[in-house]
Amino acid sequence: MDSFGRIFRVSVFGESHGRGVGAVLDGVPDGIELEASDFRNDIDRRRPSGPAGSSRREEDVPEILSGLYEGHTTGAPLTIFFPNHNTESSDYQDFDALPRPGHADYVAAVKWDWNNDPRGGGHFSGRLTLPIVAAGTVAKKILDGMSFNTSLVELGGSQEREKWDEMIRSAAAEGDSLGGIVECVVDNVPIGLGEPFWDSVESLVSHAVFSIPGVRGIEFGDGFRSSAMKGSEHNDPFGPQGPIKNGSGGVNGGISNGAPLRFRVAVKPCSSISKPQKTYNFAKEKMDTLVVKGRHDLCFAMRVPVIVEAMTAIVLADLV
Amino acid sequence: MDSFGRIFRVSVFGESHGRGVGAVLDGVPDGIELEASDFRNDIDRRRPSGPAGSSRREEDVPEILSGLYEGHTTGAPLTIFFPNHNTESSDYQDFDALPRPGHADYVAAVKWDWNNDPRGGGHFSGRLTLPIVAAGTVAKKILDGMSFNTSLVELGGSQEREKWDEMIRSAAAEGDSLGGIVECVVDNVPIGLGEPFWDSVESLVSHAVFSIPGVRGIEFGDGFRSSAMKGSEHNDPFGPQGPIKNGSGGVNGGISNGAPLRFRVAVKPCSSISKPQKTYNFAKEKMDTLVVKGRHDLCFAMRVPVIVEAMTAIVLADLV
Amino acid sequence: MDSFGRIFRVSVFGESHGRGVGAVLDGVPDGIELEASDFRNDIDRRRPSGPAGSSRREEDVPEILSGLYEGHTTGAPLTIFFPNHNTESSDYQDFDALPRPGHADYVAAVKWDWNNDPRGGGHFSGRLTLPIVAAGTVAKKILDGMSFNTSLVELGGSQEREKWDEMIRSAAAEGDSLGGIVECVVDNVPIGLGEPFWDSVESLVSHAVFSIPGVRGIEFGDGFRSSAMKGSEHNDPFGPQGPIKNGSGGVNGGISNGAPLRFRVAVKPCSSISKPQKTYNFAKEKMDTLVVKGRHDLCFAMRVPVIVEAMTAIVLADLV
Amino acid sequence: MDSFGRIFRVSVFGESHGRGVGAVLDGVPDGIELEASDFRNDIDRRRPSGPAGSSRREEDVPEILSGLYEGHTTGAPLTIFFPNHNTESSDYQDFDALPRPGHADYVAAVKWDWNNDPRGGGHFSGRLTLPIVAAGTVAKKILDGMSFNTSLVELGGSQEREKWDEMIRSAAAEGDSLGGIVECVVDNVPIGLGEPFWDSVESLVSHAVFSIPGVRGIEFGDGFRSSAMKGSEHNDPFGPQGPIKNGSGGVNGGISNGAPLRFRVAVKPCSSISKPQKTYNFAKEKMDTLVVKGRHDLCFAMRVPVIVEAMTAIVLADLV
Repeated sequence: MDSFGRIFRVSVFGESHGRGVGAVLDGVPDGIELEASDFRNDIDRRRPSGPAGSSRREEDVPEILSGLYEGHTTGAPLTIFFPNHNTESSDYQDFDALPRPGHADYVAAVKWDWNNDPRGGGHFSGRLTLPIVAAGTVAKKILDGMSFNTSLVELGGSQEREKWDEMIRSAAAEGDSLGGIVECVVDNVPIGLGEPFWDSVESLVSHAVFSIPGVRGIEFGDGFRSSAMKGSEHNDPFGPQGPIKNGSGGVNGGISNGAPLRFRVAVKPCSSISKPQKTYNFAKEKMDTLVVKGRHDLCFAMRVPVIVEAMTAIVLADLV
Repeated sequence: MDSFGRIFRVSVFGESHGRGVGAVLDGVPDGIELEASDFRNDIDRRRPSGPAGSSRREEDVPEILSGLYEGHTTGAPLTIFFPNHNTESSDYQDFDALPRPGHADYVAAVKWDWNNDPRGGGHFSGRLTLPIVAAGTVAKKILDGMSFNTSLVELGGSQEREKWDEMIRSAAAEGDSLGGIVECVVDNVPIGLGEPFWDSVESLVSHAVFSIPGVRGIEFGDGFRSSAMKGSEHNDPFGPQGPIKNGSGGVNGGISNGAPLRFRVAVKPCSSISKPQKTYNFAKEKMDTLVVKGRHDLCFAMRVPVIVEAMTAIVLADLV
Repeated sequence: MDSFGRIFRVSVFGESHGRGVGAVLDGVPDGIELEASDFRNDIDRRRPSGPAGSSRREEDVPEILSGLYEGHTTGAPLTIFFPNHNTESSDYQDFDALPRPGHADYVAAVKWDWNNDPRGGGHFSGRLTLPIVAAGTVAKKILDGMSFNTSLVELGGSQEREKWDEMIRSAAAEGDSLGGIVECVVDNVPIGLGEPFWDSVESLVSHAVFSIPGVRGIEFGDGFRSSAMKGSEHNDPFGPQGPIKNGSGGVNGGISNGAPLRFRVAVKPCSSISKPQKTYNFAKEKMDTLVVKGRHDLCFAMRVPVIVEAMTAIVLADLV
Repeated sequence: MDSFGRIFRVSVFGESHGRGVGAVLDGVPDGIELEASDFRNDIDRRRPSGPAGSSRREEDVPEILSGLYEGHTTGAPLTIFFPNHNTESSDYQDFDALPRPGHADYVAAVKWDWNNDPRGGGHFSGRLTLPIVAAGTVAKKILDGMSFNTSLVELGGSQEREKWDEMIRSAAAEGDSLGGIVECVVDNVPIGLGEPFWDSVESLVSHAVFSIPGVRGIEFGDGFRSSAMKGSEHNDPFGPQGPIKNGSGGVNGGISNGAPLRFRVAVKPCSSISKPQKTYNFAKEKMDTLVVKGRHDLCFAMRVPVIVEAMTAIVLADLV
């Protein structure tokens, strides 16, 4: 279903090349000051920039359709809508016969019996993450006092930031794309968030984060490395100020332990590349060559930090 | 909340050292043949064995309290209960003052204001995974035709199985513990499972899997490695029989694509070790030494495959 | 929460005097033909008419913001929005000090700490039933084959329709309002809808119907009269074509039995009357006289049939 | 689904003639004192008594399977189980061919393809209300300060209590059954409970109450009578202490207004009567005569007050 959360609930709607994309936020406390400019900073962080981004440019000014009165939330559902302006449908080929590798073209067509909106990925477009980022802005207002620090820590396998520009230029020249790893750290998370057995902090965060297109993995604290450690090495003794090493990423038994929440997210390289690809032509019933045109990101991972941050804020706002 | 799923819904209850542990399964189709012996195989796979397991031994024979009539499910809620027999509470120390590193003792006490059942981890015990395994058995009956293959593929950082026995013996001698990596592969998953935006296959599987105590990470298909690949390398062209490389682990855009569902789970080393640990004594307000007694696993990861498999089956049974 | 349903889920948003009102419909099957004119008939049935209606006139043309592609539903969330045009906020007095008897002014102000939108009832306005009616139109398309017959069967205590015009004129002259009883009959409901224990047909229908402002009671089949009958009198023997008398209103044990679903809904007289009323002035801390100005219905019950019908269709679409 | 509630959630399971009936309560706050004897009073109120009750006698002592530690709730799921002892299955005929009028025999058989447990109504038995009553006892502990007053106010159409004994004797002699009306009043409900648009107090209470077998109608405050009133007559002016007449039953716009919550419930006469009934024989494909044997209530309505009260407490505990 297109909603997430029990108390603070986010529903998203819209398509990449339809009227627009939006979100309904249910359970927003009343009395929060909110205006359109509050969304600016997070929306800018999500915007494609530099040589790695898509050339699509949207104003992305949110329209607040409900839930706001005299600059304050009312406690009624808050609806945020982003009209689509800059949609060149002609960019988008018909992928029915030749579905793009790594994309949802094929499964969506099978699942919805070819009734899905194929333009620009339709309801599967990365553009759906725009209302998520806006919901995250509202969630962070609810979480007043917690601080979020989310960034790309690895690009195309390299942690050396000074090399990234060159890597991007080189991939662009080849018509190829890059992936990366995003790290999110949240400070001042109160002790006791999380509702085991089923709704551990890790369960809810991973549920939300895997809704972001292109995410392939998530690990908390020491993550996959912990599987190679001994207990005496991984264990996280308490000191007077709480866990000392935070190898568990701020969570014990599914419940926040007062240490910073810390996790890493693996983002695959974008599937849309201009380099020709061999793939199956379902119409001709033989292998064929696909060249994806249109405007796409070379490295969507660069835009993911603010989206991961929004997802995390949405989860925490639901738990608080 | 202690339930998971929308159509096939599993609720778990119980404590390690109380009357028992159990599950209520809602949405079980009627007419499925079921008897107590059907649970035997999966329960045996979960049982601690060899030098790596806890010395606790339970008969673990399920009592079916409701939902069954003349050997068939009725469509009404199916309740499965495992009474506790072998509970030596005296094994369990009072961890109030000296909470065990890596355990939920401390956060649970804060969250529930010291009213939680501290014996054996209470509602946080690994024993809660027993009704999960039983629910998985039922789920796999619903998923007739899919086949599950779940195993430990790495122990303590090593993929060489012939070394594992020695590694376990050595860790046992040191009073230490080991972690590992579990891989799950499901064949014959139909195309079209998954309900984006929020309920992608990865979202639901990760949600369920992170409910298992000790899980630190999850990755689908190429997982974290994909973040270092180029698009042309990671992309998964279609062949006449579907995706060729299955680097996406059987999921595109959150929806199953007909290729095997494939993911890996990182399990940390057990937190309970007999080796002395330095940690904070909240009563004395200074650092102290803790020696955890009682019966615990040396490598809980060895018991995790059947639990991961059960969680996956629960998710798929809800989606089908 | 502002959503209802498990499979076919309706969320409503908006305020009477804000940007507009709308609904997000989740779980709409793909491939249903839909265009704006499909909504016309039901919207017209809801429109105030004659001397009994409010003088507010809205065009009420729905904008479909998402979920539609080339005239067919896509399976993605369907968002329907009705912009507000004709909003005379000046009509609405400040009811903070002198809350209107029977209205939510007072409780809403207390609940949301005076942050609610007070204009025209805000999120409590009867205008929220407009997107409900639109959702009902979609639901009835899903329920192809069932037929709905919903009408006002009693007005101001009288079942004699020829007297109603005169009763309305007389109440209008007095500045007073009238209530009524609505009956809904649905034919061709398949056997087996309803999910006891908790989600009986009656439970879900009553849940939805009591969301309509001004509903005071609901009864199925023989309803309140059945409480005075003997079992031999009320019992509904089966004939070759199913239940003979349908005293149970088409439901046995919470599950549809193939007979027409039949229930009656009591609608109170509108609370907003122009006749002066004595009520408490919270500012002056003494009794005071209130005269409610603005445009209101004299008999909202006349507009309720299509809303009850929509609610019923929404419930059935979720169960099918 | 067999669970109800968002924060305080009740799941019921079991069959009349299986191992027993029970409930899992999720969201119970920790630290509530609870022992088996706390359930005694409410369970006794539900027990059939006098000539109007079924002759079935159960000890009905609850077993608490989880969620309790040293006499206090722990915050983990509370599981209450009532084993069945006194089950004479032989009492129950095979109703496959000759389904009982007014019962779920027929619809349940169709819905679950004849796999349902037919003994004693199976999962449809009135015995399922026993764990509901127990859940109500826990809910009322959560609602410390509110007071509940629920009673049968009308029997077989008569409000004159002194006549009831004679009416029951007479119906018993005829092998017939009686219905009644139950009124529930809750004092000290705080202002502001209820979550419109969808989860008004009336929506949630009616949803829960219509889960009780045999309920045919519900009305709040002036209820059906209000439909015949004028606005000036029905309106409920505020006095210094809140609403004066409470014609709205303690709810405005779906939200509690501080006045007592007040509603009435119509209960049909029991469907199981020993008087012979003409009904369809699906095996012989012609009308036939049914005589229902076994032990049943003559007037289940007499046992309903404590069940209605439990349902109301469950709803309020979820909203608080």
